[in-house]
Amino acid sequence: MPRDLTIDALLSPAADVDAYLATYVDGVDMAPNLREAIKYSLLGPGKRVRPVLAWHCAFAVGGPGPSSLPAGGAVELVHAFSLVHDDLPAMDDDDLRRGRPTLHRHTNEAMAILAGDEMLNLSFRLVTERVSSPTLAGRLCHELALGTSGMITGQVYDTLGGYRADLPGLDKLKLIHRNKTGALIRAACRMGAFCGLAHPAQGRTTEHGFDLQALECITTYAEAIGLMFQIVDDILDVTQTAEQIGKATNKDIEAGKQTYPGVLGLDRSKAEVERLLDVSTRALEPLGVSARPLVELARYMAVRTR
Amino acid sequence: MPRDLTIDALLSPAADVDAYLATYVDGVDMAPNLREAIKYSLLGPGKRVRPVLAWHCAFAVGGPGPSSLPAGGAVELVHAFSLVHDDLPAMDDDDLRRGRPTLHRHTNEAMAILAGDEMLNLSFRLVTERVSSPTLAGRLCHELALGTSGMITGQVYDTLGGYRADLPGLDKLKLIHRNKTGALIRAACRMGAFCGLAHPAQGRTTEHGFDLQALECITTYAEAIGLMFQIVDDILDVTQTAEQIGKATNKDIEAGKQTYPGVLGLDRSKAEVERLLDVSTRALEPLGVSARPLVELARYMAVRTR
Repeated sequence: MPRDLTIDALLSPAADVDAYLATYVDGVDMAPNLREAIKYSLLGPGKRVRPVLAWHCAFAVGGPGPSSLPAGGAVELVHAFSLVHDDLPAMDDDDLRRGRPTLHRHTNEAMAILAGDEMLNLSFRLVTERVSSPTLAGRLCHELALGTSGMITGQVYDTLGGYRADLPGLDKLKLIHRNKTGALIRAACRMGAFCGLAHPAQGRTTEHGFDLQALECITTYAEAIGLMFQIVDDILDVTQTAEQIGKATNKDIEAGKQTYPGVLGLDRSKAEVERLLDVSTRALEPLGVSARPLVELARYMAVRTR
Repeated sequence: MPRDLTIDALLSPAADVDAYLATYVDGVDMAPNLREAIKYSLLGPGKRVRPVLAWHCAFAVGGPGPSSLPAGGAVELVHAFSLVHDDLPAMDDDDLRRGRPTLHRHTNEAMAILAGDEMLNLSFRLVTERVSSPTLAGRLCHELALGTSGMITGQVYDTLGGYRADLPGLDKLKLIHRNKTGALIRAACRMGAFCGLAHPAQGRTTEHGFDLQALECITTYAEAIGLMFQIVDDILDVTQTAEQIGKATNKDIEAGKQTYPGVLGLDRSKAEVERLLDVSTRALEPLGVSARPLVELARYMAVRTR
């Protein structure tokens, strides 16, 4: 049972994830310049929110946190791939990410395309090589692919359209967010839970090999915090810009992208964050004290806007 | 037992593959413009060599050809993704493929990047959704990921370098070809064989769930024809006109890329094709008459240069 629920302690599995991914990537036979590019993107600054969620989800359902590493590592590979491709000139055309040159600036566009491709591919390869149970590996690969499909289709909706022209603003926003950010967070949480539930140390009764009630709790939690995470991002984009340049314009609005504050206003957006925090934490009640790290993580994610 | 070994009959599973992939892609929930882009690239003109190989490999080891469809479909998704990304301006910058605008010309660069990403992702998703045995699904995903890793690292070596500076020309060429073209053909054949071996209709004794001798035969065949396939491509690039093969010729030489005729000369390159054809067909002898379609396919691939 975890006694230390400070945010630093909650985020500490990030170091385990980085070590795990570095070891994995070093062990794969590949062109050395490709490996360098992948490690540059994969192991740069970042909180590793998705694998940290996977870790605490495994713990919440009764398994050890480290049992989640194949799940968390795979999801982080997908997240890193998506950032590299999103930064490309044909997409967001960003030169900097977290204070460092983006990969296509650090190397070149061709390498950024290929390194992104290989990180996506390695996410599945890692699961098939590091998970000994074929049933678990199959479940993880499927969940990972579903999450990645959602993420990509969300990016298409956000940047290239394709949704119904008559879709109301809030529905459009939910469609984009649920896919673009939500799907991979959902996958991270469910995959972590699958790992925890499959571990011999977890003592719950299982049905079809997995405890469906625990999985339901984790899924409800994941969907709520996934949407909450994106609304918080939207709010920060407005409020931080306001502090910095003294007016309520921001990057998303300038880019013509719909945001929660833009559609609902700031107050109702903040109320929505509170509502989703409540949904997420209530969903975990049946899991008892082992879910406390997940509750604290959700509070941490929400508190950024207060 | 197949009676009709004309090349048209041998290539006829391509139609089954296209129908299978169209049904699959139509069944996945995604942005409609993304679906259109994926179908444009995936179902355009082409021989579907890799899924046809998978089909006949399944048959060669004693299973029915259609049992290979999840394997062949997944490999074709990877192949199609690689063409879309290779055509991008930052890579080969091609405007046409098989007489039609490349995807980034038909749509735009952002869509081509995202559709390529989703085709790679869907390749794994298809396997996890269409293969009911977790053991078989896991094997297929692993083999697919290995093949894709090889393909990507081969593309890096070919276009961005990264190999040892002192590597002799022929070794460099083999390193590039074995990865860039060979790895995915190897994956197609082995995945087809896995499907055939796992099918209840196949009557061979199995070890660890799969007939290792049959798999060995298929693997040797696959590695030989994979290299042969690329040497034939190199030879055609030198000897044929643009009209005959439907793309710009001498392009490799103009681009400064190493080719077999460039390193070995035309005659020794042709002799190498004959040698590899011999290796590939001998490897199949233990499989008997059920491997005849594979023998004929190898001859067809080689004969293009005669």
